Amino acid sequence: MMKKKENFSEWFDEVLFNADVVDSRYPVKGFAVYKGWGSKIVRGITEMLEKELEATGHDPMLFPVVIPEESFAKEAEHIKGFHAEVFWITRAGDRKLKRSMLLRPTSETAIYPLFTYWIRSHADLPLKMHQSVCVYRYETKATRPLLRMREFLWNEAHTAHADWEDAEREVHEVVGIYNRVYKSLGLSYLTLKRPDFDKFAGADYSLAFDAWNPDGRVNQIGTAHNLGENFSKAFELTYEDVDGSHKNVLTTCHGFGISRTLAAITAQHGDDHGLVLPPEIAPIQVVVVPIPYKEVDAEVMEYAKQVYEEIRNAGIRVHLDDDEKMQPGEKFYHWEMYGVPVRAEVGPKDLKDRSVTLSERDNLERTKVSFSNLISGIDELFRKIIVNISRNSQAELENSIVEATTMSGLKRAVRNRKIARTSWCGGIACAEKIKEESGGEIRGHRFDLDEEPENPCPVCDGRPEKVIYVARAY
Amino acid sequence: MMKKKENFSEWFDEVLFNADVVDSRYPVKGFAVYKGWGSKIVRGITEMLEKELEATGHDPMLFPVVIPEESFAKEAEHIKGFHAEVFWITRAGDRKLKRSMLLRPTSETAIYPLFTYWIRSHADLPLKMHQSVCVYRYETKATRPLLRMREFLWNEAHTAHADWEDAEREVHEVVGIYNRVYKSLGLSYLTLKRPDFDKFAGADYSLAFDAWNPDGRVNQIGTAHNLGENFSKAFELTYEDVDGSHKNVLTTCHGFGISRTLAAITAQHGDDHGLVLPPEIAPIQVVVVPIPYKEVDAEVMEYAKQVYEEIRNAGIRVHLDDDEKMQPGEKFYHWEMYGVPVRAEVGPKDLKDRSVTLSERDNLERTKVSFSNLISGIDELFRKIIVNISRNSQAELENSIVEATTMSGLKRAVRNRKIARTSWCGGIACAEKIKEESGGEIRGHRFDLDEEPENPCPVCDGRPEKVIYVARAY
Repeated sequence: MMKKKENFSEWFDEVLFNADVVDSRYPVKGFAVYKGWGSKIVRGITEMLEKELEATGHDPMLFPVVIPEESFAKEAEHIKGFHAEVFWITRAGDRKLKRSMLLRPTSETAIYPLFTYWIRSHADLPLKMHQSVCVYRYETKATRPLLRMREFLWNEAHTAHADWEDAEREVHEVVGIYNRVYKSLGLSYLTLKRPDFDKFAGADYSLAFDAWNPDGRVNQIGTAHNLGENFSKAFELTYEDVDGSHKNVLTTCHGFGISRTLAAITAQHGDDHGLVLPPEIAPIQVVVVPIPYKEVDAEVMEYAKQVYEEIRNAGIRVHLDDDEKMQPGEKFYHWEMYGVPVRAEVGPKDLKDRSVTLSERDNLERTKVSFSNLISGIDELFRKIIVNISRNSQAELENSIVEATTMSGLKRAVRNRKIARTSWCGGIACAEKIKEESGGEIRGHRFDLDEEPENPCPVCDGRPEKVIYVARAY
Repeated sequence: MMKKKENFSEWFDEVLFNADVVDSRYPVKGFAVYKGWGSKIVRGITEMLEKELEATGHDPMLFPVVIPEESFAKEAEHIKGFHAEVFWITRAGDRKLKRSMLLRPTSETAIYPLFTYWIRSHADLPLKMHQSVCVYRYETKATRPLLRMREFLWNEAHTAHADWEDAEREVHEVVGIYNRVYKSLGLSYLTLKRPDFDKFAGADYSLAFDAWNPDGRVNQIGTAHNLGENFSKAFELTYEDVDGSHKNVLTTCHGFGISRTLAAITAQHGDDHGLVLPPEIAPIQVVVVPIPYKEVDAEVMEYAKQVYEEIRNAGIRVHLDDDEKMQPGEKFYHWEMYGVPVRAEVGPKDLKDRSVTLSERDNLERTKVSFSNLISGIDELFRKIIVNISRNSQAELENSIVEATTMSGLKRAVRNRKIARTSWCGGIACAEKIKEESGGEIRGHRFDLDEEPENPCPVCDGRPEKVIYVARAY
């Protein structure tokens, strides 16, 4: 297999293919098939996120995939931002449709017409919903599995509020939820406020989570937007307040990239043996591999079954690989590719002293535990693995950030596949120059941290407004 | 609210709307919004089905929603059967697409191109997958919420096999799975083999599950098809057998109508108070309602919390309705509409003798249980409810089947919104005459039961081939 450090791009494709995550041979560009292992990981990520969203009052819903043209066209900035990348349905059967419809690129314009029915008074607010669906964008750049697709999986949350403060509270709540999920997955990223010229089409402001990627192109795994009154004005979304007056609601929307989170898990944690999965979402958390040996063969198998039962009864997702046609070494290779967090080896020695040899997927270290300490030993490894992969990922992120005080430093950083940390005067002309000369985009300033700029803008030498991060991006 | 027996159609729409199952005001005909309660029930049904499918080796996958025209056109009968009802994507952004794509009406033609990569030898067989997705059909008849939509939710399973026997085994396995899920939901239906003129476009034969509906139009909630070599020939799906020879695989496909199963649950079990949900899929299985009373108000509330905790700790999905702005009677009305299986009332008397008053949603009967017997009492009611609603539904099904030995009897049965049981010679002309004169369709003969026809064909008086069932259908 290709080495991750030598050719990330090919390594990435190979891991996704070999571990049955995604098959990219679907005969339409930008569309791919999620296979068994991939689908199960997707389900794990989705369930984790939905649980958090529903615990904070976001109701699960399912809106249609089609949006009528009139609804889509209502908010001027929104259609300007999205119209070049939507798929249009113009015919059905042998007929031309009277009204064209588009496949949702995002669902604000599908959802707000219904919000007008559901919101009458302040008692109907806040209104909070979410849905996990595929969305469709006619990407014209080169497509990449999971990272840049024309069909991708996400969860979108949409809310309506009585005032700006409540909308702000919601944005912070969702940022907290996304952070908790990403952290449970051991991911590292920058939480940034996007510059105005790059905010979501129709938003007052946009926050985004940019995960580091080994090829230096950051991977936007999530976004949170305060839309202010922009959409509520366009859709006439009003409510009657306590005092009888009619006011516009405030709306927010949030996108959690499920496909891209799966890409980040693969890219940040994976190694030359394949995937490395965080225990919480691994479809199989422990694989039991018997190591048969001559005359104790049957006894080893019997003991392996006991080990399997013990783990299963503890509520851990476990698989006993008792395939007699495969050698233990082949099995190790196979399950390492799939990223199973813990391997439990059961051989003649383990049988003899009633122990089990546990191997961690991330660093491939082995530990011997007694049968009576099996479950606590596995639980401890689960905790250790998530700590390890989080720490390594965080170190990589920090390592990939390079200070740049001049244009040549900035250009060198981007060329070296790094994220450049620099200052910016806030001017559009300077932003364009940065993009043009370095090839990187201004991804924004930190939302989670106040950073005071110490150097002038590297383009115009003018007074810096913000510390910004510049990188190529998917 | 409308009465179920007086106007089923309006009653049905009202229940779906009032219980937050579906909102049909989406501005595109045949597309609707699944709201919070509806989405949660959908999730429950889907999880129950997926668990069964995966336990029998069907791998979860996710294929794209778009199918290229060339793939769709490969199997002649299939395109003939579906082309009048597909939605076409012809543009993206401002460009006309070079190759038109359609939204999946079903996924055989999306899936088989990938099966050709995955199947090489007999060792790759059987290949079994499933996915829970929305499908799209341009219905030209009047649309109805959940029952006849242009976008609907289903689970589709697709499999490939080395020989006919294994394909047959698969069809029986899936029929068994669907039966178990439908039975867990208390549904009653006929399992029929469709006549050849009504089989799935491209199938060797089609089985279907027709659920009874109060308006006399049967509701096809599931199908299982043996596709033989029809698709494998068109898609060149071959494998190398043990002896080195190359053979066509055999394929099967199966559709479990999730939207329509939700329709059947609503239609078969619901009453003039609203939904009646089978405990296994109820988003809330027990609602605790405190009945406050003057000076013991705080104590009642405290005890209600204890009751809530006790139920929650038993792993039952429970909600404590402690809203102080609503009267207990309003709460009863609300949760009956939502079909919550068991209501636990906690009033001053219950407080006094440390008991709880349980009320069953289906027959509204009340039982008093002591706090120490609370969980076993609830479990018993769950069992009782599913037995009751299953029995009532089965009685309605049997009651709706009417023997018809003559054309006038058959016409009368269909006119009276019944399912007519009659004989048929097997001739197409007679089938057409039956449809034309009675308005009902031949739904097929029993798959689960051998029935010997005793009367001649009511149209031609000729030798009967099968006992068939005739009804209007969605």
